[in-house]
Amino acid sequence: MTSTMDPKFRVLHTRPVRPDGIDKVTGHADYAADIHLPRMLFARIKKSPYAHAIIKKIDVSKALALPGVEAVVTSADFPDVDDTMVPGMVPIPRKFLIGNFVAVDKVLYWGQAVAAVAATSPHIAEDALDLIEVEYEVLPPVMSAQQAMEPGAPILHAGLKTAEPMGSPADANPGPTNVASHLQVSMGDAEQAFGASDIVFEDEFHTGTWHQGYIEPHSATATWNQDGSLVIYSSSQGVFQVVRDQMATIMRMPAGRIRAVPMEIGGGFGGKNRVYVEPLAAMLSKKAGKPVKLSMTREEVMAASGPTSGTYIRAKIGAMKDGTINAIKLWMAYEAGAFPGSNVSGGANSVLGAYDIPNVLIDGYDVVLNKPRNAAYRAPGVPAPNFVAETMIDRVAEALDMDPMDVRLKNAAREGTRRPNGTVLPVNGNIEVMEAVKASPHYRSELTGANRGRGVAMGFWNANAGAHSINASVNADGTIALNSAAVDIGGLRATEAMTMAEFLGVPYEDVRTRILDTDSIGYTTITAGSGTGAGTSASVYKVALQIRERAIERAAKIWEAKVDEVTYDVATTILSGPADKDGKPRSMTFKQLAAQQGATGGYISGHVDLSGATGGPTYGGHIVDVEVDPDTGKVTVLRYTVVEDVGFALHPSYVEGQLQGAAAQGIGMGLLEDYFYDKEGTLRNSSLLDYRMPTTLDMPNIETILVEVPNPGHPLGVRGVGECSIVPPVGAIANALFDAIGIRMNDMPATPQRILDALLEKQGK
Amino acid sequence: MTSTMDPKFRVLHTRPVRPDGIDKVTGHADYAADIHLPRMLFARIKKSPYAHAIIKKIDVSKALALPGVEAVVTSADFPDVDDTMVPGMVPIPRKFLIGNFVAVDKVLYWGQAVAAVAATSPHIAEDALDLIEVEYEVLPPVMSAQQAMEPGAPILHAGLKTAEPMGSPADANPGPTNVASHLQVSMGDAEQAFGASDIVFEDEFHTGTWHQGYIEPHSATATWNQDGSLVIYSSSQGVFQVVRDQMATIMRMPAGRIRAVPMEIGGGFGGKNRVYVEPLAAMLSKKAGKPVKLSMTREEVMAASGPTSGTYIRAKIGAMKDGTINAIKLWMAYEAGAFPGSNVSGGANSVLGAYDIPNVLIDGYDVVLNKPRNAAYRAPGVPAPNFVAETMIDRVAEALDMDPMDVRLKNAAREGTRRPNGTVLPVNGNIEVMEAVKASPHYRSELTGANRGRGVAMGFWNANAGAHSINASVNADGTIALNSAAVDIGGLRATEAMTMAEFLGVPYEDVRTRILDTDSIGYTTITAGSGTGAGTSASVYKVALQIRERAIERAAKIWEAKVDEVTYDVATTILSGPADKDGKPRSMTFKQLAAQQGATGGYISGHVDLSGATGGPTYGGHIVDVEVDPDTGKVTVLRYTVVEDVGFALHPSYVEGQLQGAAAQGIGMGLLEDYFYDKEGTLRNSSLLDYRMPTTLDMPNIETILVEVPNPGHPLGVRGVGECSIVPPVGAIANALFDAIGIRMNDMPATPQRILDALLEKQGK
Repeated sequence: MTSTMDPKFRVLHTRPVRPDGIDKVTGHADYAADIHLPRMLFARIKKSPYAHAIIKKIDVSKALALPGVEAVVTSADFPDVDDTMVPGMVPIPRKFLIGNFVAVDKVLYWGQAVAAVAATSPHIAEDALDLIEVEYEVLPPVMSAQQAMEPGAPILHAGLKTAEPMGSPADANPGPTNVASHLQVSMGDAEQAFGASDIVFEDEFHTGTWHQGYIEPHSATATWNQDGSLVIYSSSQGVFQVVRDQMATIMRMPAGRIRAVPMEIGGGFGGKNRVYVEPLAAMLSKKAGKPVKLSMTREEVMAASGPTSGTYIRAKIGAMKDGTINAIKLWMAYEAGAFPGSNVSGGANSVLGAYDIPNVLIDGYDVVLNKPRNAAYRAPGVPAPNFVAETMIDRVAEALDMDPMDVRLKNAAREGTRRPNGTVLPVNGNIEVMEAVKASPHYRSELTGANRGRGVAMGFWNANAGAHSINASVNADGTIALNSAAVDIGGLRATEAMTMAEFLGVPYEDVRTRILDTDSIGYTTITAGSGTGAGTSASVYKVALQIRERAIERAAKIWEAKVDEVTYDVATTILSGPADKDGKPRSMTFKQLAAQQGATGGYISGHVDLSGATGGPTYGGHIVDVEVDPDTGKVTVLRYTVVEDVGFALHPSYVEGQLQGAAAQGIGMGLLEDYFYDKEGTLRNSSLLDYRMPTTLDMPNIETILVEVPNPGHPLGVRGVGECSIVPPVGAIANALFDAIGIRMNDMPATPQRILDALLEKQGK
Repeated sequence: MTSTMDPKFRVLHTRPVRPDGIDKVTGHADYAADIHLPRMLFARIKKSPYAHAIIKKIDVSKALALPGVEAVVTSADFPDVDDTMVPGMVPIPRKFLIGNFVAVDKVLYWGQAVAAVAATSPHIAEDALDLIEVEYEVLPPVMSAQQAMEPGAPILHAGLKTAEPMGSPADANPGPTNVASHLQVSMGDAEQAFGASDIVFEDEFHTGTWHQGYIEPHSATATWNQDGSLVIYSSSQGVFQVVRDQMATIMRMPAGRIRAVPMEIGGGFGGKNRVYVEPLAAMLSKKAGKPVKLSMTREEVMAASGPTSGTYIRAKIGAMKDGTINAIKLWMAYEAGAFPGSNVSGGANSVLGAYDIPNVLIDGYDVVLNKPRNAAYRAPGVPAPNFVAETMIDRVAEALDMDPMDVRLKNAAREGTRRPNGTVLPVNGNIEVMEAVKASPHYRSELTGANRGRGVAMGFWNANAGAHSINASVNADGTIALNSAAVDIGGLRATEAMTMAEFLGVPYEDVRTRILDTDSIGYTTITAGSGTGAGTSASVYKVALQIRERAIERAAKIWEAKVDEVTYDVATTILSGPADKDGKPRSMTFKQLAAQQGATGGYISGHVDLSGATGGPTYGGHIVDVEVDPDTGKVTVLRYTVVEDVGFALHPSYVEGQLQGAAAQGIGMGLLEDYFYDKEGTLRNSSLLDYRMPTTLDMPNIETILVEVPNPGHPLGVRGVGECSIVPPVGAIANALFDAIGIRMNDMPATPQRILDALLEKQGK
């Protein structure tokens, strides 16, 4: 680990066990599906057997007549299933919002919910599904972005028009169309720059549909109270932004009437940024007058919660003989799924983040087709175009016979670089990461042997920190109750407790961290976008200083001294004051003060609602060695190293875990994972046996090198680390495969079948 | 209602429905017994069939061998069951603390727990009880304070010595004894004053053992986590002071390792100030490694949770012919139950609170005997001696042929009166209440008819307000999430929401109040001592002002104005600022500000940990008309009026409810309720059928007259109203019975049997 931090910290930058660890490994932690409420009903989902069909009729009467069934809901039960636009990053009409969890008029993908049943047992609910009669008119499905954009393709939404960039001609694409929007990010003049380049390459690429693969299926238990308020226990990445706010919009009720209770989360990775089961459970509870639990099966998770967008990307690069890249052009079609809203914008804004390229033109298209609506997945939308860009840059290095890292260093973005989207980079560790890659034992090692190859790729992510409400109370025993509403996915409770322990001087074990519901603490941003570790630590830091200040005030009060006569030594937690009447110096520990706080002016607490911190830009460089089995096409990852600028590692093990986990997911994207639909649009691999995520047997130990260039936007220098590390793997693997077998694998994942096909084609067979 | 408040309030002093009302009346509110956790076990209690016996042996092996039984606990499982003293109002050794919920060495009352079993079903746990083999050596029981104080009485605790008042001769009472302590409250020279009096009376009295009679039995579910922390869901009057602090002491663990979660409470009245089932559930959970629920049966509640102390009181009064009372002497023996700690001190300190009597001598004795350890019950320890004092004062009025209220007014305490315990009365409504009694339609009405009588009595209670941590957050929809940890027994959520609505100007319905657990909010005092309405309203008031201030700051920031240029009109919630560049005045509503708070500097919240308010002294005067059936001894309450100085009625209906409820309980104490033990010490009426609480059929509508003399120790003038109204009824009823049948009923309750016996004795039969 390369650390630029001075070793002044006692707790931070060490590696204690997370507070929630013991309960989790012993099976005692409570996940959403563990909730049991009095009179609770169990719900199940009726799913579409078709990828594209008109719903002519739904008859639920037989299901309702089954003893034990207490409610059935369809989209007709929800308010205002119409064309009213719902504001957001990608505004969509309410009927699309509702359709995302229960079909409206048409089914648009295999496995889409058409109804949900609540009954006194899950078995009765399951039996009732067969009693719901749905009459369909089956339509031909559209299963790829390319197909969806062809003239004459089946149209999913009759009224859809393409939203064009500002300044485009009116009605540039009046429809009918499956292209929901078109965006453009540009800088300089790419076409002119290609003309002035020594070398120019063009190519086209496809990437697969990847699921986040969280182990815990979506689960929600809803209680619609008789006073019209709603309580939801569920697994999500944000009680406020995901559950409360989205439910308020869907149900057309004030947010303040909804209490969202966070449960432990068994993985999210962006896929739990949206509600799926919550609205159905809530509406069933409203109709039945009892609490309702709805948990997805694995098949439902795969078929009907959002994976990434598959993409079709065309790319062109121009460079000079010295390795200077003049221009890059990307034409990118993202599969939005059944409803608009892919992360094409995220891809367009983050791709090329590691480089200072003067001429860039990116066209992005958001295309609907008969797959589930895509959802965020770690660095949403970025791995696919990043793979394309890193392949193109690798081709420049190959053509010029340059070291791949030298080409990257030659074109590296740095502080002050203006990016194609108009932002200007602040202090960052891009150069330091590239140099650390070059200097790493892995990069400097020799790789020998047939069918073996090494690849590198860079990645970039810009994190926000958001709003984080933190409450802390000092107990009489000197321990601290520390609360937030930020869902803890990757060890937040540990870093929160460490930050409090560091700046208050108390032992780490004396800080008890918990995650509260939406009624119990102030508004808190979603755990996403790599900003939550930065945001919570900055807020806890402020709260720790508040408590120290209040401890000083209290000691001053007890000693009848002035506040500025009292000091707090964090290393010992000793408060010292002026001498007493007999000339003896006065002092007490924080624990002693805590014991008497109740009798000397009340219990001490601290509260912060906004830290004002940012997560900052983060850069990562990955190195991978692979070996290809030429007989089967199977790829073995021999060695993998992640180098990343993490700003300041609050808890190095959990930072390393983030880097390793994201890299592992990226390896899955690059080699194994994809959705397989047959020609009727039926998902053929909706189990974890058939949807092939990497297991420990597929993976080497992923080495990590933490570079620490402090983030000036954070009091401790922390940068967001959750996402950057999933950006480079696909590109790094593609480059390694080229190094191993001399073939550019432009369709990822590079499954054994694709590699074998490519090898046979290369051999002319 | 007599109100001295000016009508400036919009929300306070009105009568909205309580926020928790709908859920409660529709059966949706969650009480402790509604909790269900994954893998939860069910516990049952093995009880003693004897009132007094040595436990020679407990063999739990057969119970443990029963399939489904996962743990058995006895007192041997608890840490340090020894003579270490536990600090508190009445310090007791740890073995007494433990013995209060599970027998240590001896059983000391019928129904005492000797062991508890946890099993996979309540039926298995019940079956396992019979398999626990306990070998007893039965001892003679002691069933009254008088008997317990006699020389040669069976001794409960071999090592007990009487704690004498400061300054008493050492070893004044070396034991063996059942008298745990003796206290004295005195002022002036009572003996000399009796000698100088025109009239002197002496008499002796008994009062019964009264149970609080809460409808909800004690219930707790405990989860001993694998990291050594403990979570308890239970019904109590205070998550911090009752559950967390007591469990920390009992379990010898830091308070910060315990999270106590408040559930709705089905009545407490002081009886849920102490843990009974929590320690057993926790220890069972620790041993079984799973959550454990333990709910008491009604029989267990009656037999083994604390009722009031029965008392034996001797009294002497001396007065002048003009009605001036010179002196009162009280000798009071309180039944502590099996362990020391009756409320004799509370009785001694509060009795005579309505009077300014120059010479007072009170001796109090805390006596152990073979009944359950007494617990607090609304104005703990006061109704019994107050009945005695009000009877004695009534005898003065009778002897001098004075109006009973005139005697009281002549001797009334007022601002500045020094009380026997040394305190000096602040501003209070004693005189106003006495005058309101005299002026009331009830008192001025004529009562005619045979065997009918009217009685009056005064009562006094001095309330504290304690520490109240309040958090409030402003939601984007302009509603307020308002949190405390004060258990809501009598409508706290309503008065908290009203106070916020009043001072922020938002609608009452827009304030959502909740009660949080001990990890989620700062230390909060128990809901007891009549101080919680005062304490929470004072804190919420401060938080409302904070939020107003922050709203002004935010509006100033948005308008780029100075804070003192912005105003907040509470009546309209309109924020107004200086004119903009075009000279247009700027304004927005609080709701509009709330909608943009997230984007303009974060969500607004407020926090207060200590209000600094007091509950103040409260006075009540009760008038009761009764009719005695001379053939059966049955008493009918014809009319009942409560007059009380409530300071300021935040919510008059709930204040009236407090007064009516306490009076109803007092009527039960005076006429119906008592514990009946047979000579073996077996409780013979441990059901609500046999323990005869008044029902609606026994009660008239209780009229209330609210006097409002603002409490200067509270920002809104609020006084504590929970307890004062249970102080006068027993005395008022005794005085009414004398008026009806000419007999002083000195043993209360005046059951039909006792009245019939007295009537027969009077008639010489």
